[in-house]
Amino acid sequence: MLRFRILARDGDARRGLIETAHGSLETPGFFAVATRAALKGLDTESARRAGVQALICNSYHLAVQPGPELVAAAGGLHRFMGWPGVLATDSGGFQVFSLQHGQVADELKGRRRLPPIEDPLAAVRVDEEGAVFRSWLDGSMHRFTPENNMELQRALGADLVFCLDECTPFHVPRQYTEAATERNLRWARRCLEAFSGGAQALFGIVHGGVYPDLRRRSAAGIAELGFDGFGIGDCLGETKLDWYGVVDLVRPLLPDDRPRHLLGVGEPDDLVEGALRGIDTFDCAMPTRLARHGQALHMGRPRFRIDLARSARRGEDGPLEEGCDCHTCARFSRAYLAHLLRAREALSVPLLAEHNLRFTARLLERVREAISAGRLRDLRTEVLAAA
Amino acid sequence: MLRFRILARDGDARRGLIETAHGSLETPGFFAVATRAALKGLDTESARRAGVQALICNSYHLAVQPGPELVAAAGGLHRFMGWPGVLATDSGGFQVFSLQHGQVADELKGRRRLPPIEDPLAAVRVDEEGAVFRSWLDGSMHRFTPENNMELQRALGADLVFCLDECTPFHVPRQYTEAATERNLRWARRCLEAFSGGAQALFGIVHGGVYPDLRRRSAAGIAELGFDGFGIGDCLGETKLDWYGVVDLVRPLLPDDRPRHLLGVGEPDDLVEGALRGIDTFDCAMPTRLARHGQALHMGRPRFRIDLARSARRGEDGPLEEGCDCHTCARFSRAYLAHLLRAREALSVPLLAEHNLRFTARLLERVREAISAGRLRDLRTEVLAAA
Repeated sequence: MLRFRILARDGDARRGLIETAHGSLETPGFFAVATRAALKGLDTESARRAGVQALICNSYHLAVQPGPELVAAAGGLHRFMGWPGVLATDSGGFQVFSLQHGQVADELKGRRRLPPIEDPLAAVRVDEEGAVFRSWLDGSMHRFTPENNMELQRALGADLVFCLDECTPFHVPRQYTEAATERNLRWARRCLEAFSGGAQALFGIVHGGVYPDLRRRSAAGIAELGFDGFGIGDCLGETKLDWYGVVDLVRPLLPDDRPRHLLGVGEPDDLVEGALRGIDTFDCAMPTRLARHGQALHMGRPRFRIDLARSARRGEDGPLEEGCDCHTCARFSRAYLAHLLRAREALSVPLLAEHNLRFTARLLERVREAISAGRLRDLRTEVLAAA
Repeated sequence: MLRFRILARDGDARRGLIETAHGSLETPGFFAVATRAALKGLDTESARRAGVQALICNSYHLAVQPGPELVAAAGGLHRFMGWPGVLATDSGGFQVFSLQHGQVADELKGRRRLPPIEDPLAAVRVDEEGAVFRSWLDGSMHRFTPENNMELQRALGADLVFCLDECTPFHVPRQYTEAATERNLRWARRCLEAFSGGAQALFGIVHGGVYPDLRRRSAAGIAELGFDGFGIGDCLGETKLDWYGVVDLVRPLLPDDRPRHLLGVGEPDDLVEGALRGIDTFDCAMPTRLARHGQALHMGRPRFRIDLARSARRGEDGPLEEGCDCHTCARFSRAYLAHLLRAREALSVPLLAEHNLRFTARLLERVREAISAGRLRDLRTEVLAAA
């Protein structure tokens, strides 16, 4: 069950509302990443207080630990993890294949170049049927097929689920990406057939790497199958300009009345650039990951980040960011947070995570208001100038 | 400023109320340990919700990092750490001397025997004036004297502060403990002279190790000096029976109308045994330390602890403890908490810490009610039978 209403438009951008069996999500909106049924160090209540509207967990991790039976016996993922709101699960395809590529996440986002690898999937066996992979936990073998992945995600019980897909890294030959893109289309059809619907909604994922013709073919094929919504995934290129291009190319091929999710992207500038290009939802581990590394988001240089451990911040008595209405800024000074980091007190993590998620939520509030006011381009200018 | 009222008595036990410049503390009561101005992984708001009435920080740690000037500039420790309630600081004497003895904390609580050491303080220079020690952080030398320690604790600004003292380990010769006990008395007098009063209250500390005559001499001397309250510190022996004996010996020598604090003790049975012997307040890192080790307190075997990582707990869907009204038990199952531990999710720490602090607070609520009802001995029987 998913209802999507568009409330306002500004060029290609739209402001909307996604309604699910567990409440609604204003768009452009954000899924905070709770891979193993927990935000890193942060209670779901604090996330809610920070304005987090939706979470996304990972089927792959939860399949291995604690296993879908236990989650189902606990009444499903919402109840298990204490999150009554909108919840998604990723299929785990990305993670299965990541396992075999080391830092494939960096690859996908183009953070470095590696020489082409002849057989990138030598360690994961993938065939038409699905993929076999080894548990990182105990070495046991697991098989993912489109059919059992839909069953897995049904047992977990999230509101939004994604099709099983193979995510190709940047360094593979074009013919590899082409074959994977075609197979992903066939898997998407099988997911749709195996999907039982009910309270859940199913998102197809557009593949094709950095190849315009493959992207077009994938988008057209996925669109034709007809899903509740559409993810834009696979390798998004080397630079941010690459994904801007991918989204601009894919957007016109997807049905206008369905939500579009950009997978794994969500830095502050990305949220504005994505919204401008018609993206409705994002997910990204960055706000919570930065918190673990002692960094706070702010509307400033460098790259929207404050590195709290820098000694320059030591004596500063103000909040992380003037004007921030988060629960951390309301109560604690930069000086205290810098002290926690230096003293290696674990409390720094939830306090920074809550601020970073609030920062992200507030920026998206501004994006939605700008769309309603027809001035999202002005907001982009303002945001990009800040950092 | 400290006001202590006794509201009810049951044998040597008493129920009372300590009033400070930052609110009041019902006694028998508990100081949760926030050594470096933070409970390990737990927000002060969550602690308040769990019924924590008071915190204790460590002057030694805060003197080195972030330094008293920074805390004072931030408006004092209460504001710095976001804790509006009753707050104490320990002098740091214990920690200074611990540095030189390795696991002296184990020694003090008699967890193991070590051969006598000829000069246990070779690495910390201690003389009549005070103690010189090396910062663990950068190797810089620091000096603690009774006078500058009172100044340090005034800059930090807690409601209750403790005299600077040398804490002797279990394995030193009697003559060492005797000399330290005498010097501690002289330091206590100097603390009292240097103490500026105002909103703060000063507690003297009874020493004398496991030697009854030294304990009596110390208690009489400290009592005669006249403090706002009295700590029972120094080496408390090898077994719990030893500290029962120390408290029973010291209690009659201390003024009845002043609060008595037992330093560093606070397991569930200790709270009942201490209250029975006239102890008014406790401090102990155990509830938060157990949380970091994946253990939850409960009214049961073994030793009031649940080891959540044990696989037997894996599929259990109930709360940590039936009937517990803590925020963790209200929302999460044992199965979820066990999952967090197995997945090494940091969220397990605050969730278990809040439960453990709530368990401690609830037990003390029962202790206070039992005193009012004149049945603290029955409660002891009940609590000891449970574990």
